[in-house]
Amino acid sequence: MLQKFKPAKSEDKQALKAETAALREKLLAQQQLIREKKLPIIILLEGWAAAGKGSMISSLISEIDPRFYNVVSPVIRPEKEERYPFLYPYFAAIPENGKIMFYDAGWMDSAVSKYLRRDITKKEYKARIQAVQEFERQLRDGGYLILKLFLHISEKEQGKRLAALRENYETEWRVADDDVWQHREYNTFAETYDAFMDKTDDPIPWHVLDGEDKKVAVRDALKLLTDLIDQGLEKGRYVGKPFKEKFPLKKMPRLSEVDLSPTIEDAEYRKELKKLQKRLGELHNVIYRRKIPVILCYEGWDAAGKGGNIRRITKPLDPRGVDVMPIASPEPHEINRHFLWRFWTRLPRTGHICVFDRTWYGRVMVERLEGFCSEADWKRAYAEINEFERQLTDWGAVVLKFWIQIDSDTQLQRFTDRQNTPEKQWKLTDEDWRNREKWPQYEEAIDEMLQKTSTENAPWFIIESNDKKYARIKTLRIVIDALEKACAKYEE
Amino acid sequence: MLQKFKPAKSEDKQALKAETAALREKLLAQQQLIREKKLPIIILLEGWAAAGKGSMISSLISEIDPRFYNVVSPVIRPEKEERYPFLYPYFAAIPENGKIMFYDAGWMDSAVSKYLRRDITKKEYKARIQAVQEFERQLRDGGYLILKLFLHISEKEQGKRLAALRENYETEWRVADDDVWQHREYNTFAETYDAFMDKTDDPIPWHVLDGEDKKVAVRDALKLLTDLIDQGLEKGRYVGKPFKEKFPLKKMPRLSEVDLSPTIEDAEYRKELKKLQKRLGELHNVIYRRKIPVILCYEGWDAAGKGGNIRRITKPLDPRGVDVMPIASPEPHEINRHFLWRFWTRLPRTGHICVFDRTWYGRVMVERLEGFCSEADWKRAYAEINEFERQLTDWGAVVLKFWIQIDSDTQLQRFTDRQNTPEKQWKLTDEDWRNREKWPQYEEAIDEMLQKTSTENAPWFIIESNDKKYARIKTLRIVIDALEKACAKYEE
Repeated sequence: MLQKFKPAKSEDKQALKAETAALREKLLAQQQLIREKKLPIIILLEGWAAAGKGSMISSLISEIDPRFYNVVSPVIRPEKEERYPFLYPYFAAIPENGKIMFYDAGWMDSAVSKYLRRDITKKEYKARIQAVQEFERQLRDGGYLILKLFLHISEKEQGKRLAALRENYETEWRVADDDVWQHREYNTFAETYDAFMDKTDDPIPWHVLDGEDKKVAVRDALKLLTDLIDQGLEKGRYVGKPFKEKFPLKKMPRLSEVDLSPTIEDAEYRKELKKLQKRLGELHNVIYRRKIPVILCYEGWDAAGKGGNIRRITKPLDPRGVDVMPIASPEPHEINRHFLWRFWTRLPRTGHICVFDRTWYGRVMVERLEGFCSEADWKRAYAEINEFERQLTDWGAVVLKFWIQIDSDTQLQRFTDRQNTPEKQWKLTDEDWRNREKWPQYEEAIDEMLQKTSTENAPWFIIESNDKKYARIKTLRIVIDALEKACAKYEE
Repeated sequence: MLQKFKPAKSEDKQALKAETAALREKLLAQQQLIREKKLPIIILLEGWAAAGKGSMISSLISEIDPRFYNVVSPVIRPEKEERYPFLYPYFAAIPENGKIMFYDAGWMDSAVSKYLRRDITKKEYKARIQAVQEFERQLRDGGYLILKLFLHISEKEQGKRLAALRENYETEWRVADDDVWQHREYNTFAETYDAFMDKTDDPIPWHVLDGEDKKVAVRDALKLLTDLIDQGLEKGRYVGKPFKEKFPLKKMPRLSEVDLSPTIEDAEYRKELKKLQKRLGELHNVIYRRKIPVILCYEGWDAAGKGGNIRRITKPLDPRGVDVMPIASPEPHEINRHFLWRFWTRLPRTGHICVFDRTWYGRVMVERLEGFCSEADWKRAYAEINEFERQLTDWGAVVLKFWIQIDSDTQLQRFTDRQNTPEKQWKLTDEDWRNREKWPQYEEAIDEMLQKTSTENAPWFIIESNDKKYARIKTLRIVIDALEKACAKYEE
């Protein structure tokens, strides 16, 4: 795209000015419609160093009310200091419904620069391109309007601008070493940007703007933006269709086939618990030092024993290196964003363990059954979740998912027990009883979930928990086994 | 406190164990009452390196349901890399109502270490002690239960523990250089901790625990915690009384005395605007390089022209270095925390400009008049806000506050104009009309606010905005003047 780019012919100044003013008026009129229709809008502005990205954004926002937009410039750290997955800062910054977010450079610049600087391998770079494709599609399917712009200037023009900036004491600090390096490697960058844009041009197309004629570029950007908003206003929020992606899946039994009889003797339990917790504590040190992030996901029937199971895992861990994230119903600012947002923003840093007490799988269970999202939304979610988890394991994370299983009789017994024990009553809500009535529908949804999302890289484990002690020991063993493998892999 | 510390006598093991178990039971029973009563609880655990803080927290939380607590270990960066005020990470982490937050080391350790390392001057250190006093009192007055613990070990014991950790490959990384240095300077630290604790012992007392007898320390901590919760449950949420602090105040006129007749000619306006915006753009570079944070606060009548005024300020600024924060009614997760929390978490980084479109002064205007907080709350808020802003200017921030003033007739005219202009209708809500009916009450509240919070360090400026153009030029001049002074001060 860049290598074939032809600058626009010079235009009539008066006409250009009038056109730009009319587009600004239009954007001004659109801003409150965006809010009314609850459309979230993402504008990614990539481009060459010194192409004028900052001034372009200034110009685009100059008339918009600050209640309607934000600008974000994610900090790109040296790869070895990155503590979160590649897409983390971009996902964390997505706008809520009815707002516009301007990204002042973004995921392309980060991936390309790190790749060319050899901070990441070719394989990692490819994984990032795939993650970007998934990121953009997921957001589009979730109703986000996305505009991707590249502000282009020629090698010669870039040289001139960088030299001018460096000549002046007040502006020389604006030229970073990386900018100088980019200029020296202009052709390599151009080729790599081009290849990246080719690979990510569908379904959200790129638009190259002429950074050498700022007025034309601003007019063009305003035109693209207002057209995009028009489309969104006309067609309403887009809901992506379910799609199939091939993931290597593990064969899972149906819940009805699970044998819930296993138990453990009390003495054996105590002995094993002590031994396993000691081992887990040791491994925590190792994963901390090797900076391996660990994500443990708990789902299960009400009263299945998730809480007690989690406590047996976290007890031997240094609290500075572990977080338990209880997931309740989303708050308004969470509902107003992509459903994965509240999980992206809760990810652990490298070397840390995060235990999710309930997870993103709410999408295909409670949200599905209670109608909190559309059918297309939850049907699409299986593949979206598999993508999300693959992005996590690509990052180096250990992702383990536990379904804590009990039978209906055991649940009833535990509910009754809770009801009759004053200090446990708070644990039992009307909702628990209502959910219990829908046991068959839930079981169907859970079976489907286990079939469709138990990937090789992020597998499900069914934990028989009629005997809670048996369940705890089994979970501890699985966690230890996975961490040992992860540490060994690191040593290879 | 440390220098006079006497270790406890050895206790009967069986009795200790039984006592601890009983206290754990009690805490378990309290956890859902905390949620019911919406009590927020802060537990600060300070102590010597290798005193066993992590293991103490593990032990305290081991039975608590993860839905009720979190642990935070704020990262202490080298002073020159700190981009936020000293208290920022601690304020950002305060729990919401009904939850417990454990701080694994906190504000004392950060202040003392930096002071002894000479990262901060004695004057800065004193300012931090004062900030801590204010922080703790503000939270207490806002209904937070606070427990401050210091885990103590002797110099000899610390030496033994550090040596043991360093002997073992798996644990040697746990001994940081700072820990070794602390051990070498044990006596200096002990004196400084003691002095700090003396100065911050009221109204929230410190408790020193014996880190050499872990079982006793855990029992003692559990006892203190459960007693504190008992008190809170019994007496309910504490509401602090209004108090007087002496701040150097600037004399402000009453709104009714303000002459709203000033205007500016259109040609003069355009010339001045261009000149001033150019100058402001230049100054943005300077404050960015000198890392001066800038906080501009806008308050004013509905339709006074805040939005347009703000846009004239932000237009010449690089969008990467400025954020406009529109403040609407708080969301549930914001209401559930101290009223200053949502402003603390929106502060700019050093070198950045943040424009607040409405501010924390909502407390003494809309919240006061609509009864969203108690009388004691808003009466206390004047001093709390002065403290907050002094903490910001102590940090080095330029804080300017603008009251955008119009008269009632002008407002009516602008409301009518909005009503009759389709693309402006969204700006006018029923609430605006309702607020208008309360003009006299608001005027009284605003007058009181201006009298009580226009401090020398963070002054109010009344901006006559019957002529919006005049208002914009006046505001720009004030901002430029203040930034020039701040830059000059930096050069001294």
